[in-house]
Amino acid sequence: MQAVYLEKGHIHYLKERAMPVPQPGEALVRVTLAGICATDLELVKGYKGDFQGIPGHEFVGVVERAPDEWWHGRRVVGSINIGCNQCDFCRQHGPEHCSNRRVLGLMGKDGAFADYLTLPQENLVAVPDSVSDEAAVFTEPLAAALRIREQVRIRPSAKTAVIGPGRLGLLIGQVLALDGNDVVMIGRNRRSLERPSALGLRAGLAEEFAPDSFDLIVEATGNAEGFTTAQRLLRPLGTLVLKSTFVGAPPIDMSYLVVNEITMIGSRCGPFAPALNLLAQEKINVKSMLEAVYQLRQAQIAFAHAAQPGVRKVLLRP
Amino acid sequence: MQAVYLEKGHIHYLKERAMPVPQPGEALVRVTLAGICATDLELVKGYKGDFQGIPGHEFVGVVERAPDEWWHGRRVVGSINIGCNQCDFCRQHGPEHCSNRRVLGLMGKDGAFADYLTLPQENLVAVPDSVSDEAAVFTEPLAAALRIREQVRIRPSAKTAVIGPGRLGLLIGQVLALDGNDVVMIGRNRRSLERPSALGLRAGLAEEFAPDSFDLIVEATGNAEGFTTAQRLLRPLGTLVLKSTFVGAPPIDMSYLVVNEITMIGSRCGPFAPALNLLAQEKINVKSMLEAVYQLRQAQIAFAHAAQPGVRKVLLRP
Repeated sequence: MQAVYLEKGHIHYLKERAMPVPQPGEALVRVTLAGICATDLELVKGYKGDFQGIPGHEFVGVVERAPDEWWHGRRVVGSINIGCNQCDFCRQHGPEHCSNRRVLGLMGKDGAFADYLTLPQENLVAVPDSVSDEAAVFTEPLAAALRIREQVRIRPSAKTAVIGPGRLGLLIGQVLALDGNDVVMIGRNRRSLERPSALGLRAGLAEEFAPDSFDLIVEATGNAEGFTTAQRLLRPLGTLVLKSTFVGAPPIDMSYLVVNEITMIGSRCGPFAPALNLLAQEKINVKSMLEAVYQLRQAQIAFAHAAQPGVRKVLLRP
Repeated sequence: MQAVYLEKGHIHYLKERAMPVPQPGEALVRVTLAGICATDLELVKGYKGDFQGIPGHEFVGVVERAPDEWWHGRRVVGSINIGCNQCDFCRQHGPEHCSNRRVLGLMGKDGAFADYLTLPQENLVAVPDSVSDEAAVFTEPLAAALRIREQVRIRPSAKTAVIGPGRLGLLIGQVLALDGNDVVMIGRNRRSLERPSALGLRAGLAEEFAPDSFDLIVEATGNAEGFTTAQRLLRPLGTLVLKSTFVGAPPIDMSYLVVNEITMIGSRCGPFAPALNLLAQEKINVKSMLEAVYQLRQAQIAFAHAAQPGVRKVLLRP
């Protein structure tokens, strides 16, 4: 089959790879669409550790083979963490924090930028007929946005902001606004405010807001500047959710955290089932977040497109 | 009256100062004992901003004058934050995070290393007869330790640790152990483990514990090494309470926080009334935490003593 392939920090945008062989408990999935996210772009730039294999963790596909026949021919998305199922963490919290976990397209497990992938059957979630492939491919990042609501109680009247109106930020903003919360999307230039505005979200530049303006801020830029902005705009006793992995270790003024009694919370993968429900109920607008669809063999052009600033979601179709 | 006095980064260990004049709503308190804490030592070293005036914020004293006669002659301790009483923060959360606050002996308000101090009557808490001055003077740091329980739900069975078995750390350890929790005090050498052991707390060196050993860790050293240890010993999905202000800004691996979904929470001043209850009920051992009592005129010797490593609480008696 054809695949994007990472090898010793080098990216092959198209490489012939052997068809993956499902291991016990695994299903074989024919990928129909896969999304390129910021983490994939960092992988390709060599910023992210030592993953070797096929990247890609946002996908929708069709089950070709599975231990349970019920799955045959089903359209599916799949959660990306694969735990050992043996340790305390797997048993108490699920696979997301298993110290022996593999992660689809990110850690020890070939991913979705390929004609086929394999995944444990228990990771699969069937896609309702009413949800198109182009919507279902947003399930993984939408679940990641929903994770915030699993971790933090957010009052509908809380003053909330999202720093970084990018691909993930726009999903987070919509998720925070689900219960009527008047969330503000904060960008660094006027152009970056157009998309959140088009989605009906309030939007503004950081300098338009006084210090201590917000009760809860989600940092979704992953850069030191975004973090500094978040610290300035968050009120004492506020909560700062860190939603994207950072390149490097920006220095944090720990005294600020102590004196203002800030809660800072890291947030990663989330629940697929409610994310799919939201897509089926059309409560999250993902249609306007689609930039372009490329054939898998055009992966190089697709990655270059996705890396441009202000670009929405770029998809690959095997 | 006599006082310790900070002036433009220089410390006068004894200076003649005018008697403080109570402002409307304030009481005049004759200080009977005052404790030296790590923050005071940093003030004196010039590490802490621009406070000018009399330091000292841990005290017990006797009310000489107050708006309400009931207070006359009462033995009191006093909470240290003085808010504007007008802003949203004061009204919703109390004075601790008022942006116009003054803080006894720390910010815009003369403190307790003096014969007398003034404080709003509403900040005073009467000390029960059964609590000695030598115990009551621990009310402020004990309240700060109790603050953790106001912010975080701590399961009695949670694996908890305190990094830094110093003056504040030993109070925190006892507070975490109140409901039977088997808290571990972590020090950097064998000698530092003697005091927590004498208090009946489990104690160990950081290297004796595997990574991810604890569900909740309180960082009470205020140095980068303590913070690094905390990160290593805290499990994914764990909570890290920052309990002491830091000198400088140690770099934090933000990706670590995100990937492991760590909650980090700053913690400062706490409630006086339950702290006094605990002292009256003798549920917290403060007797063994007393190092020495000096006359106020011996402040220089007292500060030098308090600054030595491994030293317990040093008190000043005006």
